[in-house]
Amino acid sequence: MDKTKRVPIEVAGAQLVAAFNKTPYLTFNQMEMRFEDDTIRCYLDARRELVGNTHFNILHGGVAATMLDSIAGIVAMLELYRRNQGTLSEQHKKMARLATVDLRVDYLAPGRGKQYIANAEVIRMGRKGCTMRMEMVNDEGKSIAMGIATFAY
Amino acid sequence: MDKTKRVPIEVAGAQLVAAFNKTPYLTFNQMEMRFEDDTIRCYLDARRELVGNTHFNILHGGVAATMLDSIAGIVAMLELYRRNQGTLSEQHKKMARLATVDLRVDYLAPGRGKQYIANAEVIRMGRKGCTMRMEMVNDEGKSIAMGIATFAY
Amino acid sequence: MDKTKRVPIEVAGAQLVAAFNKTPYLTFNQMEMRFEDDTIRCYLDARRELVGNTHFNILHGGVAATMLDSIAGIVAMLELYRRNQGTLSEQHKKMARLATVDLRVDYLAPGRGKQYIANAEVIRMGRKGCTMRMEMVNDEGKSIAMGIATFAY
Amino acid sequence: MDKTKRVPIEVAGAQLVAAFNKTPYLTFNQMEMRFEDDTIRCYLDARRELVGNTHFNILHGGVAATMLDSIAGIVAMLELYRRNQGTLSEQHKKMARLATVDLRVDYLAPGRGKQYIANAEVIRMGRKGCTMRMEMVNDEGKSIAMGIATFAY
Repeated sequence: MDKTKRVPIEVAGAQLVAAFNKTPYLTFNQMEMRFEDDTIRCYLDARRELVGNTHFNILHGGVAATMLDSIAGIVAMLELYRRNQGTLSEQHKKMARLATVDLRVDYLAPGRGKQYIANAEVIRMGRKGCTMRMEMVNDEGKSIAMGIATFAY
Repeated sequence: MDKTKRVPIEVAGAQLVAAFNKTPYLTFNQMEMRFEDDTIRCYLDARRELVGNTHFNILHGGVAATMLDSIAGIVAMLELYRRNQGTLSEQHKKMARLATVDLRVDYLAPGRGKQYIANAEVIRMGRKGCTMRMEMVNDEGKSIAMGIATFAY
Repeated sequence: MDKTKRVPIEVAGAQLVAAFNKTPYLTFNQMEMRFEDDTIRCYLDARRELVGNTHFNILHGGVAATMLDSIAGIVAMLELYRRNQGTLSEQHKKMARLATVDLRVDYLAPGRGKQYIANAEVIRMGRKGCTMRMEMVNDEGKSIAMGIATFAY
Repeated sequence: MDKTKRVPIEVAGAQLVAAFNKTPYLTFNQMEMRFEDDTIRCYLDARRELVGNTHFNILHGGVAATMLDSIAGIVAMLELYRRNQGTLSEQHKKMARLATVDLRVDYLAPGRGKQYIANAEVIRMGRKGCTMRMEMVNDEGKSIAMGIATFAY
């Protein structure tokens, strides 16, 4: 992301997504961030490797936790940029330092489907940290997991 | 696990570990359960693929969440077997049905090290569910993450 | 609540509210449940006794936790009644046994205002337990705290 | 607390306890902080007013949440003082600004007993926030609730 001048949110979003999609653990899991509808979502196609319970063929809970933590982080960064409190340089420092402090995942339905999609929204954005709310649905729109995460920056 | 008769805890533990180590998402992540010191621990060697923050070379938070969820589940099963409330058949039904209801992960230090080891203990074991407390340390014994999970069975 | 026959939801709601409003800790705090708009909400007027931080005159975090736990419990009972899975007698047993397993509260803004109002919604309703999502706002509609709770029954 | 010079930890602890015990919501609940064994604990005698479930005569979950939030806050302040990172003046600013960001309570056993005692320990202390672990036991030493809280300062 260009650190010296302000770019439109869709440019910032595209740059964030491009950078995030190189994260080793996301490429390993084949999770993909996409900037769309003025926000960022995370996509994952179901694969045998992601199964946690072979008897019932259900997604491992860690997959949902990974998606929810990741989407919360990137959407928090996008919102920091969008709100642009303080100078742009301060915003960039915050974005680079952003770290998950705690994460809660609620498993609402067995993880079944052909594709999983995760989104996130800000519920608190403070000077030194924020709180994010996340959801993962399957390709039929069924809610599989919800989450809350606290970040520091 | 032999469902018709009671075996010593170390036999039950070894059988559980053997079964769990075939879980697709655990083999994909190269996480390995071991029965030792009368309990079960989960081991993971650091690898490039597990990184979440390339700038600081830190483990992705989803890796810790995956390990903590997994170790909590297998240790809960072992404890259900050990405590053997109700008939053995009821215990086996509970073990098969065991599912994470919610998970909290607290990130205590940046995930750095050569190896990560996770353990779990029961803090509540009820008729229909239990609460587990987990910790992940690195090879130097530094606490990287702690967790709490509620399970239903 | 009449345990032998089914009553309309507004009658069940009124009966639940009347019973809950006798709970010692709710009367002690002067928290009041009301059935309105087909759901139940919890109301609390600001008082000096409820302050946790005298320097900034902010509501104690325990007040929000108490309201969120209480509203989640009563709305879970109402939903168990409304959905009426199993026989009515089974529903009543579940309602009587309902107990909070875990509660998360996220503090989003300093607790200031003349009145606080809490609401809750079901996000998972299973055979042996449910997950509730709660929010507390002040009289200006500002979100003070959100919560998630897991219940067993 | 004297803000201009450093006092021994037991003096700082006694001053913190004296200040905290004037908090309106703690006096209203009759919760009492005590500095003892080099740490601070919170004490509460069982009373009819604190009951949440009259059928089973069980403590309201909000009482445990209030005690755990409070003990975490005061012990975090004591530890900030003890560790004295940065100047004393910075420490005092942190102590004054300390606010709960999120709180998780796990209810482990029905709240019954003559007295309840809560303690807390630091599991992470960072530059801008900390994570605390808490426990509430009854007078027989039975664990009634455990908690985790994230604070910002």
